Amino acid sequence: MKKGLFITIEGMDGSGKTTQINMIRDYISEKGYNVMLAREPGGTKISEKIRDIILDPANGAMAAITEVLLYASARAQLVAEVIKPAVESGSVVVCDRFIDSSFAYQGFGRGIDIKTIADVNRAAIDGMMPDLTFFIDMSPEIALKRRMASSEADRIEKEHMEFHMKAYNGYKELARLYPERIKTIDGNRTVEEISQEIRKWLDTVV
Amino acid sequence: MKKGLFITIEGMDGSGKTTQINMIRDYISEKGYNVMLAREPGGTKISEKIRDIILDPANGAMAAITEVLLYASARAQLVAEVIKPAVESGSVVVCDRFIDSSFAYQGFGRGIDIKTIADVNRAAIDGMMPDLTFFIDMSPEIALKRRMASSEADRIEKEHMEFHMKAYNGYKELARLYPERIKTIDGNRTVEEISQEIRKWLDTVV
Repeated sequence: MKKGLFITIEGMDGSGKTTQINMIRDYISEKGYNVMLAREPGGTKISEKIRDIILDPANGAMAAITEVLLYASARAQLVAEVIKPAVESGSVVVCDRFIDSSFAYQGFGRGIDIKTIADVNRAAIDGMMPDLTFFIDMSPEIALKRRMASSEADRIEKEHMEFHMKAYNGYKELARLYPERIKTIDGNRTVEEISQEIRKWLDTVV
Repeated sequence: MKKGLFITIEGMDGSGKTTQINMIRDYISEKGYNVMLAREPGGTKISEKIRDIILDPANGAMAAITEVLLYASARAQLVAEVIKPAVESGSVVVCDRFIDSSFAYQGFGRGIDIKTIADVNRAAIDGMMPDLTFFIDMSPEIALKRRMASSEADRIEKEHMEFHMKAYNGYKELARLYPERIKTIDGNRTVEEISQEIRKWLDTVV
């Protein structure tokens, strides 16, 4: 690699993203690369403060476009402070959620115009489109069941199932539109089977 | 008026905006209109939380584009919760700073591409461009002197004079580009003289 690599993981909460991100880190580290993990929204001191505003259940009055802009604000800071410097110095950055989450949840989920989301995020990502994105394909119903044991739900998680279904279908549409970048990974399999397919794709880029 | 009116006041901190805003409120109220005052960044519970992040001197690592997006986030919520409903119900809204502050401070001041600021703010203002804007023209040096007695400076106020000078020249450029909307008011006069000129312009719209 001339420079580093930027990989993102997308899908419903509960679809097993975190487990796979840790396995990706281990796999790429073993190949001798410097790996950095990040998550959205958050990942910097300023982005975490923005994350608190986005997810606070007390902020129910938040307009959909405010949410789009706040996610983009947190993303912009993460790109500027972490992702861009790391990738430019040759590291592999693996990020839990990125721009596709905005398209899926705010665009397809809340019905915000896709062009508006693209305009706002073009400013935020400063040219850092992911080189490779894994969409862990698991329906919202199954993902929710897997999260039943989890702690208190935040503002986004509390949204009704119809919203998550729209976001899920949005992901599938994005994967159809950008098949070169977005790899759809069937999440209804064992951790090892999923990891094996992801490693196969990783072998094509590192 | 078929519907209400949206008036904004721009200029350096210390140029006397607050005094004039209160006089505008009194003048328009006397004419029988319902007047609502707002300020940026802030004006709603969510926008105030965003304001805290923007102005906190501890957030010195903030990227310029993050700042643009955060101001736009606070603006979007103020438009959605306050400005748009009020203007649509026939009120006159007078806002201390709005989109021109982003062009002046983040665009001309920090050198962020003007098209980027326009793209981001197009989403934020949801069609609510001001009907009339007063730019209180006072140089940063004089405005700063008038603020000497004021309390602790926030993150934006602490910027060096060169930044404020660029923003000031940005305002003058905006006033040249949009003379129909932006009225330049010489701020180096008595409060009453300034108010008189502003009232003259107000008489043309209410």
